[in-house]
Amino acid sequence: MVEQRWMDRALALAARGPWPDPNPRVGCVLVDPTGNVVAEGFHRGAGTPHAEADALARAGGRAKGCTAYVTLEPCAHTGRTAPCADALVAAGVAAVVYGQADPNPAASGGAAVLRRSGVTVTGGCSVEAATALNERWASTIRLGRPLVTWKFAATLDGRSAAADGSSQWVTGDDARADVHRLRATRDAVLVGTGTVTVDDPRLTVRDAAGRPLDRQPLRVVMGMRPVPEDARVRQGRGRVEVLHTRDPHEALAALWDIGIRDVWLEGGPTLASAFLRAGVVDEVYAYLAPALLGAGAPAVGDLGITTMAGILRLSTRDVRVIGTDVRIHAAVAPQAAAAVTKE
Amino acid sequence: MVEQRWMDRALALAARGPWPDPNPRVGCVLVDPTGNVVAEGFHRGAGTPHAEADALARAGGRAKGCTAYVTLEPCAHTGRTAPCADALVAAGVAAVVYGQADPNPAASGGAAVLRRSGVTVTGGCSVEAATALNERWASTIRLGRPLVTWKFAATLDGRSAAADGSSQWVTGDDARADVHRLRATRDAVLVGTGTVTVDDPRLTVRDAAGRPLDRQPLRVVMGMRPVPEDARVRQGRGRVEVLHTRDPHEALAALWDIGIRDVWLEGGPTLASAFLRAGVVDEVYAYLAPALLGAGAPAVGDLGITTMAGILRLSTRDVRVIGTDVRIHAAVAPQAAAAVTKE
Repeated sequence: MVEQRWMDRALALAARGPWPDPNPRVGCVLVDPTGNVVAEGFHRGAGTPHAEADALARAGGRAKGCTAYVTLEPCAHTGRTAPCADALVAAGVAAVVYGQADPNPAASGGAAVLRRSGVTVTGGCSVEAATALNERWASTIRLGRPLVTWKFAATLDGRSAAADGSSQWVTGDDARADVHRLRATRDAVLVGTGTVTVDDPRLTVRDAAGRPLDRQPLRVVMGMRPVPEDARVRQGRGRVEVLHTRDPHEALAALWDIGIRDVWLEGGPTLASAFLRAGVVDEVYAYLAPALLGAGAPAVGDLGITTMAGILRLSTRDVRVIGTDVRIHAAVAPQAAAAVTKE
Repeated sequence: MVEQRWMDRALALAARGPWPDPNPRVGCVLVDPTGNVVAEGFHRGAGTPHAEADALARAGGRAKGCTAYVTLEPCAHTGRTAPCADALVAAGVAAVVYGQADPNPAASGGAAVLRRSGVTVTGGCSVEAATALNERWASTIRLGRPLVTWKFAATLDGRSAAADGSSQWVTGDDARADVHRLRATRDAVLVGTGTVTVDDPRLTVRDAAGRPLDRQPLRVVMGMRPVPEDARVRQGRGRVEVLHTRDPHEALAALWDIGIRDVWLEGGPTLASAFLRAGVVDEVYAYLAPALLGAGAPAVGDLGITTMAGILRLSTRDVRVIGTDVRIHAAVAPQAAAAVTKE
């Protein structure tokens, strides 16, 4: 019998896992035939035991005959750790109840492995909650690259800098604090070498008082211009990665290889248009100040769009007034991005 | 004794008057010493009797000994009608209670006239409500020109047209319906001859079903290019005015002279920047579509602003999601407009 409360518990455990991370967030609860919890586990990020392995290690011999509640279908592949399906069989688990089927082709098939070994398997339990938990991770698996969120600040007439190049303080304090809050939810902040040369940003994540947070996203600078040794991006807490390329695909592949999955893009108009044209922007945060400049650098450079029929339509997720500014959060539909790429 | 309920009634009557109009909205209630309403009146717009004259005409001889509740200080000047202060004295009114002191230097002084004639005068009754009623009118008196509201539609990157000049349907149906609703609250819609040549708009006010409303704002086209005889702006319900000037001050003076007080500016980037540089834009409605173009005509042309210190800051009044678009309504502070003019 499937008991909902154990899957709820497994979901709560899974939510304690980290994002962004190359691995999904998974929770596991081992329940014996009398209805007692023998052990719990969850995944703490790439390089640490999977949730099932975590729970089995805690259960030891008591896992035998148990039902395992797992939020994601147990994996069938050998990565840095052994396949969980095999481990569950080896431990003598009698039944497995899981939430989401594994969307990762490299790891899926665990349910079949378990069934072949005589384990009773029930999939799709709390599938919506389980899927929601790893929505961003599943997108990275589907796309085979990190997610990219492009943030820009501009006036109502779309200017991110004045005619003389000055770009500081288009938006207000509250908008800047909001950017820091959102940067902190990504594992990398990406700019071009041009931005480093012109604006010399720190790219750290700071709290409302201006103090750097403990966990800092990787600071990534891409492009062909050198990054000066005394650039502020090289200072302070947190690592820095310099990518000698102008190609968004190449940069994202390099970031994928070092485990980056959720990128916050703060490039200027040239970098932003390169990413948009490459069809690799998934979300946009536009911070619009109630102001006009009439001239100066636009928020984004040429996208190869020549007529209104080619306009890149986004899908608004959320509109918010942040201090004196307006924040528009929108998603780039995959087909729309593809349309730009085709131009 | 001042009775609030009669001023409330006078305010309700005043609100039935028209705006936009060269005259303020005014209501008047004549109450006899036993507390009975003898007559009511309100102003129905320039060229019709003032509220006091309207009420006095209805009261006839019964006005004698009454208290007049008037939302605005009775006028002391002879315009198209005789001074109301004199008329109240002549009718034998014993007391006058008014709301707002007349902000029009040409007409003020009525309270003094009344007092000199032995009428008991109490000013400032419900002054906030009375002032709010004629806020836009008072602004036109202070500025000595019509109010100007600039409306534009653009993408998040501030483009109002694609690179090939196509500008139709940046924003959605709901935004367009909203524009028609707001256009209808103004007495003139203003564009440049360039917009007429390129877009050939009708500039009429239509309901949700596309039917023209009975009351149509004056359609004004300004600029040096000829307006073709078959231009759509010349067709359909409502009058058309062509002003052969590029100078915003000159255009507004001409419109003032024909009684226009509240202009809805829908010009392209050139006309918009001319008005902004002249410091004669009071409000902005920005309709922003969740979309990107990367190229094409910007919402506004050069404003002479070269550095971030010169940015034209607006004051947000209201942010609203309208269908798929975002509408930002902002006021241009007089000092900010002046700063642009100085550049």
